[in-house]
Amino acid sequence: MQTDEQAIRELTATWMAATKAGAIETVLSLMADDVVFLIAGQPPMMGKASYAAAARPGPNQRPPQIDSTSEIQEIKVLGEWAFMWTKLKVVMTPPDGATPVTRAGHTLTVLRKQNGKWLLARDANLLTVQK
Amino acid sequence: MQTDEQAIRELTATWMAATKAGAIETVLSLMADDVVFLIAGQPPMMGKASYAAAARPGPNQRPPQIDSTSEIQEIKVLGEWAFMWTKLKVVMTPPDGATPVTRAGHTLTVLRKQNGKWLLARDANLLTVQK
Repeated sequence: MQTDEQAIRELTATWMAATKAGAIETVLSLMADDVVFLIAGQPPMMGKASYAAAARPGPNQRPPQIDSTSEIQEIKVLGEWAFMWTKLKVVMTPPDGATPVTRAGHTLTVLRKQNGKWLLARDANLLTVQK
Repeated sequence: MQTDEQAIRELTATWMAATKAGAIETVLSLMADDVVFLIAGQPPMMGKASYAAAARPGPNQRPPQIDSTSEIQEIKVLGEWAFMWTKLKVVMTPPDGATPVTRAGHTLTVLRKQNGKWLLARDANLLTVQK
């Protein structure tokens, strides 16, 4: 029997593996319909459809390679909701051979259990470009 | 009888008023002992004592003037915990007459009710300097 904390750790691992593999539909299946992504210097990205529109590559586009390493600092389960904060590093390699860009920092995430499955609900991404 | 949501709105208003007034002890009374502040490009600030050390002006220092405007976008109460995200603007005016610096963006905050009082517990600050 998997605990809620284990399920949230697995969600995080699946998210990173699916992102790396470019498996956008899998990533979309891990978020609530009303998800909100907060990113510094950008307007909030609200709703799964907005994420999908931004993440799906165009017809003649190759997606970047995205490698992430996450160190979960805390998971607190509050019944059908939970929050988590992590130390995260993301290396994005453009398909055209340009120099990879590394972002690092923290995330604060609110998760929600729906029909027995944990989903990402609110996410604050504090990563900054590393030089 | 004040609802939890009203109490959290009041906490936010009190926090901003106390910050503006330089009432550091009041601000400290609004956060949990194990509070965590996440800020882009900085290490996490962990614990009320760390906040106090950073916020209290030195013996010969005058604090900056800090004016904030907050638009609460969502408050979700989960029993003794809650989360909130806001649109926030902070204008910091140095005491030496230097040009004020404006930061704007969003926050995602986890709050906790302890002994009947709501406190700030985890906070992600996504504000960026406005030019």
